[in-house]
Amino acid sequence: MLEQLKKEVYEANMELPKRGLVTYTWGNVSGIDREQGLFVIKPSGVSYDDLKPEDMVVVDLKGNKVEGNFNPSSDTATHLELYLAFPEIGGVVHTHSPVATAWAQAGRSIPCYGTTHADYFKGDIPCTRSLTEEEVNNGYEKNTGLVIVETFSGLNPLYVPGVLCKNHGPFTWGKNAAEAVYNAVVLEEVAKMNLMTEQLNNKMSPAPKYIQDKHFLRKHGPNAYYGQS
Amino acid sequence: MLEQLKKEVYEANMELPKRGLVTYTWGNVSGIDREQGLFVIKPSGVSYDDLKPEDMVVVDLKGNKVEGNFNPSSDTATHLELYLAFPEIGGVVHTHSPVATAWAQAGRSIPCYGTTHADYFKGDIPCTRSLTEEEVNNGYEKNTGLVIVETFSGLNPLYVPGVLCKNHGPFTWGKNAAEAVYNAVVLEEVAKMNLMTEQLNNKMSPAPKYIQDKHFLRKHGPNAYYGQS
Amino acid sequence: MLEQLKKEVYEANMELPKRGLVTYTWGNVSGIDREQGLFVIKPSGVSYDDLKPEDMVVVDLKGNKVEGNFNPSSDTATHLELYLAFPEIGGVVHTHSPVATAWAQAGRSIPCYGTTHADYFKGDIPCTRSLTEEEVNNGYEKNTGLVIVETFSGLNPLYVPGVLCKNHGPFTWGKNAAEAVYNAVVLEEVAKMNLMTEQLNNKMSPAPKYIQDKHFLRKHGPNAYYGQS
Amino acid sequence: MLEQLKKEVYEANMELPKRGLVTYTWGNVSGIDREQGLFVIKPSGVSYDDLKPEDMVVVDLKGNKVEGNFNPSSDTATHLELYLAFPEIGGVVHTHSPVATAWAQAGRSIPCYGTTHADYFKGDIPCTRSLTEEEVNNGYEKNTGLVIVETFSGLNPLYVPGVLCKNHGPFTWGKNAAEAVYNAVVLEEVAKMNLMTEQLNNKMSPAPKYIQDKHFLRKHGPNAYYGQS
Repeated sequence: MLEQLKKEVYEANMELPKRGLVTYTWGNVSGIDREQGLFVIKPSGVSYDDLKPEDMVVVDLKGNKVEGNFNPSSDTATHLELYLAFPEIGGVVHTHSPVATAWAQAGRSIPCYGTTHADYFKGDIPCTRSLTEEEVNNGYEKNTGLVIVETFSGLNPLYVPGVLCKNHGPFTWGKNAAEAVYNAVVLEEVAKMNLMTEQLNNKMSPAPKYIQDKHFLRKHGPNAYYGQS
Repeated sequence: MLEQLKKEVYEANMELPKRGLVTYTWGNVSGIDREQGLFVIKPSGVSYDDLKPEDMVVVDLKGNKVEGNFNPSSDTATHLELYLAFPEIGGVVHTHSPVATAWAQAGRSIPCYGTTHADYFKGDIPCTRSLTEEEVNNGYEKNTGLVIVETFSGLNPLYVPGVLCKNHGPFTWGKNAAEAVYNAVVLEEVAKMNLMTEQLNNKMSPAPKYIQDKHFLRKHGPNAYYGQS
Repeated sequence: MLEQLKKEVYEANMELPKRGLVTYTWGNVSGIDREQGLFVIKPSGVSYDDLKPEDMVVVDLKGNKVEGNFNPSSDTATHLELYLAFPEIGGVVHTHSPVATAWAQAGRSIPCYGTTHADYFKGDIPCTRSLTEEEVNNGYEKNTGLVIVETFSGLNPLYVPGVLCKNHGPFTWGKNAAEAVYNAVVLEEVAKMNLMTEQLNNKMSPAPKYIQDKHFLRKHGPNAYYGQS
Repeated sequence: MLEQLKKEVYEANMELPKRGLVTYTWGNVSGIDREQGLFVIKPSGVSYDDLKPEDMVVVDLKGNKVEGNFNPSSDTATHLELYLAFPEIGGVVHTHSPVATAWAQAGRSIPCYGTTHADYFKGDIPCTRSLTEEEVNNGYEKNTGLVIVETFSGLNPLYVPGVLCKNHGPFTWGKNAAEAVYNAVVLEEVAKMNLMTEQLNNKMSPAPKYIQDKHFLRKHGPNAYYGQS
């Protein structure tokens, strides 16, 4: 069942430790088959060293496990809300990558200070509000997804393919699982650069809007001219 | 004698350089056999490159060497006090991992700023008081253990599986040697994230208590639902 | 066509990920054959894992592609302006190496705080002004080159073999592609050291001029005595 | 000639890139044969990838090259002054390791904030004064050695086996070349920990003297009890 998607999601998961984004099991990737209305996600708490493509768990869009020998990631309900609210996306990633997590813990959106950020994220990378006690105690993972969706009111999720969950850490997404991981790597690099930028200049303002737009549109949209296509 | 435990303690020791927590010989792991009242610990000052399972030293609960070709770790008396005071624990680790050591040198407990911390440590990771001159000059390593025990008055050592010894560095523990090492890795990651968090926001307060509790109890206690069990 | 130069430029490109200066495709190296008036540059958006010497693209000094299966780097017009303005140089590098990029985002020239810097860069490593909206919207990459040239008015580009483009990142250069990469590595190391230097002393001034000159001239010019020549 | 010493000095040199202390050729190690009054040092500017034991250069205590196909390190005159002034030492190391260099550039001695430092260095790791213009222009490398010796007036060089040269970087030493490299690694680790310690607590004072002494004397002197001897 969904063998090709399981393979892609497996490979995307394995990129996380390879790229230095996860310690132990602190991350998970999923990918969706929109036609069948099913997504595939890492099992909960399984070590990356032991992970195999066939261990991926298949879940439907009501959050029920459809196939798999393991329990799906404890963050499955968050992935589900993102798939429901953002029909453009095909893959979702969660990590505790250290610098992005520091911004999330600090409760700060990441301002766009330069072109590395602007090449992939249009404007700030937003930080959500805190969940309420009620939201934490009743449906925590689902509410984590809903507060991300609330944060993206008025934003295009493919133009801003990631978010910081306050006191928690980053989620990123993309057209598919591989692109979602790519954006998780970009986010960590940008988080690191921008932390150091503020250490070097304590009166930073964002890069001029016209530079941000130029770089984003070099890589995205009908007039993109970066790369080979 | 205690061949299986020696192997486990050896493997837990070897995780320390593999995970980047030790330079040269700056760390040691022990594990206990509660039934026999004996624990097994790294020999003092032996290079990790040369270490073998049979080099592990067996010590009784009066601190006497029972078996081994080498002297036990110079921190043996600290491990012993922890085993005596915390009957729930089965393994102890000491390192000088750089960021946790920086918090210890700064004399600061690590506040819980997010879920990475809350998944493994319930509340602050405490820093001990300074030892007095008398405590340092007479039974330094034993007193290091006793001041840790004093710091944990009213705390559950399995809910807060680690401590910072002021001006020195971290000790962690767990159900067994492997889990104690796992907690040493978590502590270093959390120390790093929380240092950067304060650099990004100089008015931090801890994460809301209900978020801390939610994450700790997702992974611990009767209602835990993370992982496969 | 230009097989030897393609090989050199390919090898210089491959040094970038090996030295930890690039994530994904965020960097490019070129090298020039001054006699033929042609330069060779990395293709745009091609992964370093897949790159081969024959993928290098040949470009003339009007910016036209002369040979190659791929589009040249999107930064080709910047490289071109540097070759036109600085006849002494034979290779150019662009990266988003994280610490140099942080200085660029902070809009700060890197002061010379010590001999590591002075061994390779005479005086500050300058940061350009921001490009205007007009300069960004009409010929962005060419104007990036022109603003670097403007910044170097009165400077010897072989004595200061690199620059920070504001809100963007570093360019470096040298006698050939390999030396340009060497200078990119030096720049990142110096950027890192000097960030930490300011964290340790918030009232820094540059190293005495006579120390800067001594070190630069130990390695450069007729009285150099470092190394074997 | 001095084959065994050349091998030891070669191996000590090769530890520098392996331990992450040098970029390119930014470091050198020497070792001395006190009976013959000769020391062996890395050749100047030779890549670590190409270095061989037989490339080591033999120098006498007047600074004359006695044997070798290459020029000795440009820092040879500094090593020589240290051997002349400190008869207890058998090996000398110079690096530009980034964090120790940042302290040197900041012009700050490293205070003893904890036991990692106290295990190997008794008290502050001192930073020299700046060299005068005269000292730089006439016999720079020799004067670098002399200003280190001046800084150590009243200090035991085996109790404080390293120094920061202002605006330049660290020198360390030890009983032999291998121990000098060991101390260079310790210095970089301590430099890193202590930078972070000040970031966590901007009102730091040194660790209590009795803790510093306890740790130093656990490892040094007649009552040492760390390790196997």
